[in-house]
Amino acid sequence: MTTPKNTGFEAQPYYGICTFGRQPHTRDLTGVDVAVVGVPYDGSTSYRSGARFGPRAIREQSLLLWGYNNALDVAPFKAQKVIDYGDVDVVPPDIVATHTAIHDEVSSLVKEGVKVITLGGAHSIALPLLRAHSHKYGRLAVIHFDAHPDTWDTEFGEQKYSHGTPFRRAIEEKLIDTSAYIQIGIRGPTSGKKDYEDAIALGARMITIDDAMRMGLGGILGEIRSRVQNKPVYLTFDIDSIDPAFAPGTGTPEVGGFSSYQILQLLRGLKGLNLVGFDLVEVSPPFDHSNITSILASNIVFEFLSLLAVNKQPV
Amino acid sequence: MTTPKNTGFEAQPYYGICTFGRQPHTRDLTGVDVAVVGVPYDGSTSYRSGARFGPRAIREQSLLLWGYNNALDVAPFKAQKVIDYGDVDVVPPDIVATHTAIHDEVSSLVKEGVKVITLGGAHSIALPLLRAHSHKYGRLAVIHFDAHPDTWDTEFGEQKYSHGTPFRRAIEEKLIDTSAYIQIGIRGPTSGKKDYEDAIALGARMITIDDAMRMGLGGILGEIRSRVQNKPVYLTFDIDSIDPAFAPGTGTPEVGGFSSYQILQLLRGLKGLNLVGFDLVEVSPPFDHSNITSILASNIVFEFLSLLAVNKQPV
Amino acid sequence: MTTPKNTGFEAQPYYGICTFGRQPHTRDLTGVDVAVVGVPYDGSTSYRSGARFGPRAIREQSLLLWGYNNALDVAPFKAQKVIDYGDVDVVPPDIVATHTAIHDEVSSLVKEGVKVITLGGAHSIALPLLRAHSHKYGRLAVIHFDAHPDTWDTEFGEQKYSHGTPFRRAIEEKLIDTSAYIQIGIRGPTSGKKDYEDAIALGARMITIDDAMRMGLGGILGEIRSRVQNKPVYLTFDIDSIDPAFAPGTGTPEVGGFSSYQILQLLRGLKGLNLVGFDLVEVSPPFDHSNITSILASNIVFEFLSLLAVNKQPV
Amino acid sequence: MTTPKNTGFEAQPYYGICTFGRQPHTRDLTGVDVAVVGVPYDGSTSYRSGARFGPRAIREQSLLLWGYNNALDVAPFKAQKVIDYGDVDVVPPDIVATHTAIHDEVSSLVKEGVKVITLGGAHSIALPLLRAHSHKYGRLAVIHFDAHPDTWDTEFGEQKYSHGTPFRRAIEEKLIDTSAYIQIGIRGPTSGKKDYEDAIALGARMITIDDAMRMGLGGILGEIRSRVQNKPVYLTFDIDSIDPAFAPGTGTPEVGGFSSYQILQLLRGLKGLNLVGFDLVEVSPPFDHSNITSILASNIVFEFLSLLAVNKQPV
Amino acid sequence: MTTPKNTGFEAQPYYGICTFGRQPHTRDLTGVDVAVVGVPYDGSTSYRSGARFGPRAIREQSLLLWGYNNALDVAPFKAQKVIDYGDVDVVPPDIVATHTAIHDEVSSLVKEGVKVITLGGAHSIALPLLRAHSHKYGRLAVIHFDAHPDTWDTEFGEQKYSHGTPFRRAIEEKLIDTSAYIQIGIRGPTSGKKDYEDAIALGARMITIDDAMRMGLGGILGEIRSRVQNKPVYLTFDIDSIDPAFAPGTGTPEVGGFSSYQILQLLRGLKGLNLVGFDLVEVSPPFDHSNITSILASNIVFEFLSLLAVNKQPV
Amino acid sequence: MTTPKNTGFEAQPYYGICTFGRQPHTRDLTGVDVAVVGVPYDGSTSYRSGARFGPRAIREQSLLLWGYNNALDVAPFKAQKVIDYGDVDVVPPDIVATHTAIHDEVSSLVKEGVKVITLGGAHSIALPLLRAHSHKYGRLAVIHFDAHPDTWDTEFGEQKYSHGTPFRRAIEEKLIDTSAYIQIGIRGPTSGKKDYEDAIALGARMITIDDAMRMGLGGILGEIRSRVQNKPVYLTFDIDSIDPAFAPGTGTPEVGGFSSYQILQLLRGLKGLNLVGFDLVEVSPPFDHSNITSILASNIVFEFLSLLAVNKQPV
Repeated sequence: MTTPKNTGFEAQPYYGICTFGRQPHTRDLTGVDVAVVGVPYDGSTSYRSGARFGPRAIREQSLLLWGYNNALDVAPFKAQKVIDYGDVDVVPPDIVATHTAIHDEVSSLVKEGVKVITLGGAHSIALPLLRAHSHKYGRLAVIHFDAHPDTWDTEFGEQKYSHGTPFRRAIEEKLIDTSAYIQIGIRGPTSGKKDYEDAIALGARMITIDDAMRMGLGGILGEIRSRVQNKPVYLTFDIDSIDPAFAPGTGTPEVGGFSSYQILQLLRGLKGLNLVGFDLVEVSPPFDHSNITSILASNIVFEFLSLLAVNKQPV
Repeated sequence: MTTPKNTGFEAQPYYGICTFGRQPHTRDLTGVDVAVVGVPYDGSTSYRSGARFGPRAIREQSLLLWGYNNALDVAPFKAQKVIDYGDVDVVPPDIVATHTAIHDEVSSLVKEGVKVITLGGAHSIALPLLRAHSHKYGRLAVIHFDAHPDTWDTEFGEQKYSHGTPFRRAIEEKLIDTSAYIQIGIRGPTSGKKDYEDAIALGARMITIDDAMRMGLGGILGEIRSRVQNKPVYLTFDIDSIDPAFAPGTGTPEVGGFSSYQILQLLRGLKGLNLVGFDLVEVSPPFDHSNITSILASNIVFEFLSLLAVNKQPV
Repeated sequence: MTTPKNTGFEAQPYYGICTFGRQPHTRDLTGVDVAVVGVPYDGSTSYRSGARFGPRAIREQSLLLWGYNNALDVAPFKAQKVIDYGDVDVVPPDIVATHTAIHDEVSSLVKEGVKVITLGGAHSIALPLLRAHSHKYGRLAVIHFDAHPDTWDTEFGEQKYSHGTPFRRAIEEKLIDTSAYIQIGIRGPTSGKKDYEDAIALGARMITIDDAMRMGLGGILGEIRSRVQNKPVYLTFDIDSIDPAFAPGTGTPEVGGFSSYQILQLLRGLKGLNLVGFDLVEVSPPFDHSNITSILASNIVFEFLSLLAVNKQPV
Repeated sequence: MTTPKNTGFEAQPYYGICTFGRQPHTRDLTGVDVAVVGVPYDGSTSYRSGARFGPRAIREQSLLLWGYNNALDVAPFKAQKVIDYGDVDVVPPDIVATHTAIHDEVSSLVKEGVKVITLGGAHSIALPLLRAHSHKYGRLAVIHFDAHPDTWDTEFGEQKYSHGTPFRRAIEEKLIDTSAYIQIGIRGPTSGKKDYEDAIALGARMITIDDAMRMGLGGILGEIRSRVQNKPVYLTFDIDSIDPAFAPGTGTPEVGGFSSYQILQLLRGLKGLNLVGFDLVEVSPPFDHSNITSILASNIVFEFLSLLAVNKQPV
Repeated sequence: MTTPKNTGFEAQPYYGICTFGRQPHTRDLTGVDVAVVGVPYDGSTSYRSGARFGPRAIREQSLLLWGYNNALDVAPFKAQKVIDYGDVDVVPPDIVATHTAIHDEVSSLVKEGVKVITLGGAHSIALPLLRAHSHKYGRLAVIHFDAHPDTWDTEFGEQKYSHGTPFRRAIEEKLIDTSAYIQIGIRGPTSGKKDYEDAIALGARMITIDDAMRMGLGGILGEIRSRVQNKPVYLTFDIDSIDPAFAPGTGTPEVGGFSSYQILQLLRGLKGLNLVGFDLVEVSPPFDHSNITSILASNIVFEFLSLLAVNKQPV
Repeated sequence: MTTPKNTGFEAQPYYGICTFGRQPHTRDLTGVDVAVVGVPYDGSTSYRSGARFGPRAIREQSLLLWGYNNALDVAPFKAQKVIDYGDVDVVPPDIVATHTAIHDEVSSLVKEGVKVITLGGAHSIALPLLRAHSHKYGRLAVIHFDAHPDTWDTEFGEQKYSHGTPFRRAIEEKLIDTSAYIQIGIRGPTSGKKDYEDAIALGARMITIDDAMRMGLGGILGEIRSRVQNKPVYLTFDIDSIDPAFAPGTGTPEVGGFSSYQILQLLRGLKGLNLVGFDLVEVSPPFDHSNITSILASNIVFEFLSLLAVNKQPV
């Protein structure tokens, strides 16, 4: 992308073409540290569709990110080379073809050593993303923010691939190091007692929202660090881990979740972990209002970028 | 459904459980003339998803239909036995499984002689619906209201089944009597000149919106009657045939369409045709406002019911 | 209601006719433990009308309740027989006729030993509901979540019956055991110092939001238990007890209220009380967005159902 | 109201306190020609409530009316003294008390010779308004724009007073000269054939929307003039006479109505009639979007004011 | 911009970075025929602000334009080289600095022979745009679609530059050939009789909406052609020329305007004119719903592009 | 304003002309203690415009304020004479003319000893407001609630006056006593480390949101009191200090802010300070939903009024 002429004024949030954080939209990976990639797929949603517009809305609101992270003392767009890679070409009526497209596109980035931050899309996309990262890094520690365990065996009858099943599939495919798999924010009615039991039996350390409120931020972060240690970590973030008051624009909202302040504190507490990949999923703009969900989502991605940038800085 | 006790007040539109037109929700077909069936599937949409909520919204707004059609002089819920069959159990991530479910469910109704009015859902569902009706009635005359021909060969790359392809598939499968296939309201930018040419080459009599405005309502109705004659007719109605001012809640809006008044006149003009099946598709409630699209849709279904009732009345 | 054929897929939240929690819509009380009853009346509202659509919206969003309450370890739709009774036939322009209809309909359920959970509608409906329950259970302990005391003498000039007066009327009518009447969450500007003084003089133990924040959840629950003991308790829940960020869809919002997490904890803390009746009022869907208020309301009803189910379980 | 200091800039539509057309808010009738009066009552609505906010929204949008009517060549705020009288103090839970308040307040204006333009509120308010005007002017010619005849005998069971019955009541009370009563725009499903038959039997000249489209604007206006002649005319305007695309913010929308252009032409065509009173009812702002309904409503009131001003001008 | 890898699927409207019509975002003018340029300025608006988001919303919805114009038989993105130039860097609190920035940026394109289509922004921007085009083409014929003449002398007191004054300024600056200046769609209340008189005195041929409805599309187009002849024409299009039902998302809506169908017909009727520049202004997305205004706007720009492409084709 | 006749009913929130808290709209200052003044200016906004509608929306929602502040035990509309002064006549395209108008209008009030509470409008208006107050009171202590320091040197290139610069200008102009200048709630990405450093270097005591959460309400209040002492204090309140879940309707939302409960507690904690002026800015109604932001804003103004009233009461 040719850089626009700068007439001497700084770019304001209402100005210009919407790439993530105004970073260049390119597929040239030369020197690239981090690529933001969109996956506009919502075909696996069990309630409210619309997450296909998640990447677009998050990009749009990301123009409000002024660039410097005071809490982490880092300027993530300056400390590293970030690009907006654009979107994966998904196939709405065919989840298997979609998974292949995601895997192939993202693998081509991961294997070049580019760190990928994926903007969903429904949570089903985590499976091909974990595959792509596991090829490079082996079994992954996984920090999983969510209201739901997403470890069902099937959904919609006998469907193996859907937004309620990706982490069971990933465990079956040995993509996840279950000793370092932690779920945070789980809550809400489930289809039965077995939903939690199954997740735990599969190896997840489940921190429900009640656990989280009891443990406090320090307790949660301690638990994360003790499990994850210095292993390569994939961070998968379902926006519905946050309360619908703060993040209404999502597909299967669950009341009684985290506030945005709590989430920012938790994310900043991950500083120094060996983070190798990220996704942020289930932002559904048609159910958002005044963009508060996509503004929050763009800030979460900004924290992801900052965590990567902090790791890159000399000690 | 046990009939609610009636305390002496008439049921108002804000009252009670939402079945279509307050008709009983049952799967018992004894004596049933017409079944309203929902297909909450939006996995094949190329732009805005949300049509999975179409059946629910149309049912809700249908409670505003007071029961008597003055223009056609008929009370369609009294002249015939109508049920709300509920929804087909679709499979969002798998269009083929979805088509099978639609076909099987609707065939079981059609073969019993029940007339089916299907509430979509995306237009891809027309294919299994045409299959189900063709089994019973043979090749079908088709009156097709739409902004788009929906006769692409593939969509999303190589996908044969999607919301842009059902009528080409149906013609290939010999479900449609192309000498009696008429498209009404076609407009908007297309992927090329070939889009219209292909539809016409496949046999469609295409009345674009410009043709329609030139011909007038009488001209259009004359053309329909001369083609369809007394053949069994399937009426497939994409809400985007209507202008977005009147029907904003849809997936791929095209400006410059019919007004609601024009559409009601056209539908009433079909009185006496040998109508054997109906669908109303592409109502996407997350993009509606104040329910004007679903109110309009429920009125269109009311006209469908009235057309059936008129045919049932003794001459 | 004939059970729909199940084609092998589980019902998803976007699917089918909206009864509360997919429970059967019937007025046959045989073997029924709990009936969910709608009262679509908003004629007594002092600010934003729209609560007549509360029951419909709560039913719609209740389809997202998967069925098992992890916090209370109970499956409330399995542990007891629940029905959706439908709505009371109210009379918008006449509050007295409306109260009679509510009282008569609900009494017929209560006297059969059915536990009733009422979905409002404006808070004025609590008066006929308390009457109906008091006939059966005598003077009632009342746990009253609200931003407002609702103990005015008159409203709109000399109106005795309105949404600001039901609890004064109920105390005058000796429906409430005032030694066991507790108000929780009271806040906001009032018409004068007398508003609180009057409520207290009438016998209410008032826990304002400031009291609540100071006492903590444990303190509030202790206070409730010490007052209510094992008396029959009616729980009346005005959604405006919750902060407008979490519950915008209501008629007279008051800022500075409970979060949804706090409310869920408070409700679960009522486990074991002798709960005999419930209402959830003042959900006004035209002022909701993305259904977050009605989703929260359906979860609160799920907690009501769970509390009843827990009591039913053998010790 | 003290006139604000004018700092030399003209008042823009976003500026200042919202009275209708920036006219003074006063109850001093000295020299007043026309009073705009609000009636924020929606207790009689059969579907969507919210019309209580109609007067407020119409006032707010009226600030966009620049003052000169080019089509009628008149400046209605200059040619006559107009005030914003404020609202009648209605009683939401009691329609009879509300009618008394409306009648008493408006009668006090009408008997002083002030022309009143009432902003509703639901259509039930037409009954006390017709009473107030009939005291002064005798039996009234009535031009009635509406989608519905509003001549039911009862509604909500046995309610005599509601928004579906005012014109039957008014005819029974001999407030209307039925030889000069004309309904325009009637359409939509009704509760039976009898709805139209009854209206006609009561004396209404009913011009359905189909009649209207056939007759053309000239035909309708001719019919109006031939009936109304030089009798004192009350104009009652239900916003649902207009299509929901143009006026979504209303309680019982009916598709297939007039466009805003057609309505403006019809209203201007009433120039010279002996108009003695007006109401504009059923604007429901919670169901409006971007204020298009209240903008349209404020323009309709502007035409009312212009018709009065034209009559006042010397010939 | 590096072309994204194409994985074999076609780009769908929900996919990818939003440039107008997916054309390259660049400031390299080599070989460029047409540049789409955004001007996100709304500081001169007299009522509802928000037009600063017009360019962004129009770009987003332009992805639904499939590429071929059937009515004009042209593929405007293939027949000519189109770029998305991005936005002019405006200065919200300073209209003079904003005008300078617009003028300088657009002049640099116009003088290179690039045709510019500007996406507003408020109508004040027409003045610097006319200046930029007049430098190249001399006095311009102007076809001006609008509800308002925009020929006030001052606004907001003594402000010479605002969205109500640009065409008076342009005439004073001799940028417009007033013998070929035509306004279409004028309507609504004005500040006095002088508003129209002044516009006409300044030389405008004013076709009010009433004139337009009487003349018909053919009559209007005849009048345009007779005035404009083969002079270089600048087309300035205020979205409020269209009725708010079709285009609610604008700053100063006027009821009783054109339908979208009428507008498309009028624009296509300009085929063959010597069109040298275009703007589309006053789209205000915060007041839009379901994007119907920005979808309509993107279609209007598509017609602009098609008109240019038709002119470019060999005869 | 002539007092409306009171028909015996109390005024409800849906009733009547919207002045702040139903106080008289007048510019007569005789005996006035407090004037509420609107400044509908949004021309200096860097992201979402719309704050020009802030005063109107806050007035409208203020009718829900019943009058008595229980927490502070005061009836602010009775304890002092409050007027709604109306709006300052601003000039959208010219910030300098706007500042002059604000300054002149507000100075005329301040110098008469009237306390002014200003409803914004964008934060740029704080500069002329500080000038007006400083003339009367000398250098001002300033309590500044905000997500942003607003101490940039320039914005939009070289603009000295904008909504990101007022407090630097005010310090340069010696309007602020920097030893008593405290910022509360600062957070979010900034343009660099320098943003905070500059604010601190200018003299601000900055309490970031992280500081605030650590210090607790008591800690913050202690810090405020120790700095401000008994100096004359100006309180400037940017609504974006509150989290977007509670206050979505604003121009540059920053996630992770205060809850409404926290804010109310902080404000009430200012009891007894020597408060001489107030503004509440950046409420942008087009981005609000269900008015929750303007309801919150009207409650904040109610606290301002209560703080003034408490000071006025005899000890």
